[in-house]
Amino acid sequence: MTAQSTWREKALLKKNQLNSKIKDEWKLDNATMRRLKNDKKNLTKNIDDLCPFSENQITHSTIIKLREKLKARELTCHEITFAFCHRAALIHQVVNCLSEIMFSEALKLADYQDTHRPTTLPPLYGIPISLKDQCNVEGVDTSLGYLSRTFKPKTKKEESLIVTFLRDLGALIFVKTTVPSSMMATDTESNTFGYTYNSINLEFSSGGSSGGEGSLIGAHGSLLGLGTDIGGSIRIPSSYQGLFGLKPTFGRVPYLKVDNSFEGRETIPSVIGPLAKDLLDLRYFMSCIINTCKPWVQDVKCIPYHFDSTTNELHKNYVVGIWYGDGIIDLPPSDIRALKMCENLVNNTEGMKAVQWKPSSELSGELFDIANEADVADSGNEIKGEFELSGEPLLDILKPMVLIDGRPPYTVNEWWDLTKRVYNAQQSMRDYYLSFPESDRPDVIISPTTLMPFRPGDMLKTTLRYILLFNVLNFPSLSIPAGSVNCQVDGLMDISSALNTEDKMIRTYWNDLIESGDIEGFPIGLQVVSPTFDDSEVCKFASWYCSRV
Amino acid sequence: MTAQSTWREKALLKKNQLNSKIKDEWKLDNATMRRLKNDKKNLTKNIDDLCPFSENQITHSTIIKLREKLKARELTCHEITFAFCHRAALIHQVVNCLSEIMFSEALKLADYQDTHRPTTLPPLYGIPISLKDQCNVEGVDTSLGYLSRTFKPKTKKEESLIVTFLRDLGALIFVKTTVPSSMMATDTESNTFGYTYNSINLEFSSGGSSGGEGSLIGAHGSLLGLGTDIGGSIRIPSSYQGLFGLKPTFGRVPYLKVDNSFEGRETIPSVIGPLAKDLLDLRYFMSCIINTCKPWVQDVKCIPYHFDSTTNELHKNYVVGIWYGDGIIDLPPSDIRALKMCENLVNNTEGMKAVQWKPSSELSGELFDIANEADVADSGNEIKGEFELSGEPLLDILKPMVLIDGRPPYTVNEWWDLTKRVYNAQQSMRDYYLSFPESDRPDVIISPTTLMPFRPGDMLKTTLRYILLFNVLNFPSLSIPAGSVNCQVDGLMDISSALNTEDKMIRTYWNDLIESGDIEGFPIGLQVVSPTFDDSEVCKFASWYCSRV
Repeated sequence: MTAQSTWREKALLKKNQLNSKIKDEWKLDNATMRRLKNDKKNLTKNIDDLCPFSENQITHSTIIKLREKLKARELTCHEITFAFCHRAALIHQVVNCLSEIMFSEALKLADYQDTHRPTTLPPLYGIPISLKDQCNVEGVDTSLGYLSRTFKPKTKKEESLIVTFLRDLGALIFVKTTVPSSMMATDTESNTFGYTYNSINLEFSSGGSSGGEGSLIGAHGSLLGLGTDIGGSIRIPSSYQGLFGLKPTFGRVPYLKVDNSFEGRETIPSVIGPLAKDLLDLRYFMSCIINTCKPWVQDVKCIPYHFDSTTNELHKNYVVGIWYGDGIIDLPPSDIRALKMCENLVNNTEGMKAVQWKPSSELSGELFDIANEADVADSGNEIKGEFELSGEPLLDILKPMVLIDGRPPYTVNEWWDLTKRVYNAQQSMRDYYLSFPESDRPDVIISPTTLMPFRPGDMLKTTLRYILLFNVLNFPSLSIPAGSVNCQVDGLMDISSALNTEDKMIRTYWNDLIESGDIEGFPIGLQVVSPTFDDSEVCKFASWYCSRV
Repeated sequence: MTAQSTWREKALLKKNQLNSKIKDEWKLDNATMRRLKNDKKNLTKNIDDLCPFSENQITHSTIIKLREKLKARELTCHEITFAFCHRAALIHQVVNCLSEIMFSEALKLADYQDTHRPTTLPPLYGIPISLKDQCNVEGVDTSLGYLSRTFKPKTKKEESLIVTFLRDLGALIFVKTTVPSSMMATDTESNTFGYTYNSINLEFSSGGSSGGEGSLIGAHGSLLGLGTDIGGSIRIPSSYQGLFGLKPTFGRVPYLKVDNSFEGRETIPSVIGPLAKDLLDLRYFMSCIINTCKPWVQDVKCIPYHFDSTTNELHKNYVVGIWYGDGIIDLPPSDIRALKMCENLVNNTEGMKAVQWKPSSELSGELFDIANEADVADSGNEIKGEFELSGEPLLDILKPMVLIDGRPPYTVNEWWDLTKRVYNAQQSMRDYYLSFPESDRPDVIISPTTLMPFRPGDMLKTTLRYILLFNVLNFPSLSIPAGSVNCQVDGLMDISSALNTEDKMIRTYWNDLIESGDIEGFPIGLQVVSPTFDDSEVCKFASWYCSRV
């Protein structure tokens, strides 16, 4: 048996293990599958048509509303869980978003919950929650998209603290979702599970690395799931699927015993946070995890904090910074339109004002460069090593991370130098913030996100320049849906006035997307960011904003 | 000119620059100098005898009392500053504790303060504060004990944020104090400034690395100074000079623009905090820096926190963990006596209870090993490089840090592994803490400190096993004076029952100190430690404790 056949066989075994957990009656026939895959922009509607009305009522609801129905005994935990299991199975067969299926465990627990209902229902009682395939759950793998880590089910002791919290809160874990191997890509693909498509428009990538989450929730296969973000991995799939996705400040949501790449790399750390269809659900979830579970008691990396999920009123003399771009990569017309709409709304509201947020191109560029440098500091050692363990071939999406032209890994002194540059850049941004007169200091900043979607294979034709810097800065950032692309209104970009080669490449890609018409109706994403680490505030502003557009 | 003569000449120039800032009338004649140096245990009294009564009244007072006198116009800023400048100059000539002298600047500012008195005096108005030679002050060097960094005065823009805060609070910066080159030693020596002696007993080391601070404050040459602590550097000199020294949790007191070794090493970070004669002064100072200055506004590494300096009452059902040792190195009789006294006091107080704090030897050992490993991770590269810059010879005290048997510096992957071990060990200690029933979880832990003093050259005959772990754990720790050694009461240790070679070495050294009688009357130090990062609480408990013994 050759190495190649070995890895292929193992990958097939894993894929079969996964698919064996989907009931036969939930399996799509070939004709339906073809029809759904070809009807690129209508997955949600097409899945709706395959599900009973009663299930759609559940899957198109919100956690908060389902909880009310549970309390009023208008729904059972079983009904809710069944609806999401069914729908997730259907979505998965089209977009390929699941890596672990726990339908039977979830339904069993739902039945138990229905027969052992306490007088007061715990905050997430009977609510199915999906998890990115980094969270450890007893009895199933955490493969991070690596074949080498399959068929190594986790023990109870290895369970992530956040999973324990979810159990304590009454939630039901029903699926784990796909990631690109190593998570160090913004496209979601692995040799084991294949490619995860965008559930809003199958033409495009789901984004990454929490691509499975984004795609699943995008088509109502889950109301809320957990992703992680070291370089946009929550915000990009959220943006690409029209969701709310919060990259919290480090230390808000516990990462304890969540598997990861580059464990121990505490400079520009990965953070864990929710992706959700509904913003109130997301805020409710954050308040449960932070205020109820108090993660700092158990996880030494967590910091005491109160997450305010109840207030919707913004304080007086509210200042919103609008970031129209870094002067390196210009924004596409859709983003400018969305930002202008926000600016106008703010300026037309009494007691609020918009200011231009415009840190220097040098600083924005430095933040971006640092993040990229950090990601290749080990010259791809860890990722290469993981691929070698199973013999699976390196993925194209990871080659920029791994094939580093013979440079040895950083020494510890080089790493400390980079860490120092991170702090200096963070301070420079703080100094920029403090350079505003106090009455003009932004409470939140509105920033573009990923500018535009990309087709499989085109990951590097977009930019992370509006993404990575907030990881380096550790600013909490909530990705929010902010309208959709209208090809006629938004139109082409002028290639001849491109600022540089990179800008030209991106403008060209945008024009291609517009000319093909594929991008028509695609969600526009913006980020609401706090320069003072105030996670509650970004959510509060987003609630205000979304209630007005 | 040979390299050797070059460095010697430069060092001499620096020393001359320093000494030229001491007025001639403050210079000790040779006979007095000899007398003071030979009278090892009476420096404070001897200095008292050299100073006018009015100055001794000032230098033996407290910040809080001096502030009252300033308010009542019973003292001027000039009188206070003059008294401390004079005394610091005298002490320095015996123990060699200063690296920068700013008497004229401080006196000039004091005069200005006297003639421009505001109606409400800022919190530290007219109070001289000393600084470890890592803090950047305009116009003077920050040499870190490296000859290569002398004659490079800092600019206004380079001033440490904490120095800006001190200025804002009205404090007067009058001296900077000696450190071992690189600060990576617990003895204080450099080729440029020489050796810093203990001001309580000149037989011994001042400790380190904030040795100059410890020795200066120990003989009332300053009421409060700032030190830093990456491995005991605040707590050891505090303990050795009978002071209060707080190693805060990381992110309480701003480190922004404080020079350091290993900048960018954020695993087991150095922290900055006060050493003081008086605990109320120390608490008052912390409340000024944290509550008044709100360092998190300006320094992104600082975390919002309220430092409670007003309450002295301990809450109900107070639990104190007593740590009688790690099972690797046994405690000398003096420490056991001090710990027992504390335990009895607690147990004899209604509403309080002492419990045994006894993490496993494996965990304590792992924490100690990790800290040592981190310190040599770069195989001495940085320190070696700094010595080479000036051609000065490597110090014996640094050889264990630098002469690492040809091992190359850690790769970034090795460093991440170590960082991961830090987190795992921190979590293991948290799990140990949580393993107590809730009613038995210690509010504070009482731990030994450095066990015993050491003579110049004997640094490695003591242990850091009760020191380094709290750096790895990031637990705030307040070193407090807890009585003094009584050779007759405390007596010899049994060598034959030593637990291991290291334990035997330390017992032997203890016996040597007892038999020589040198240790008679030497301060015993204990640490008050918070397992939940509560800096206020350790100070509150210490106030309670010190008011009762």
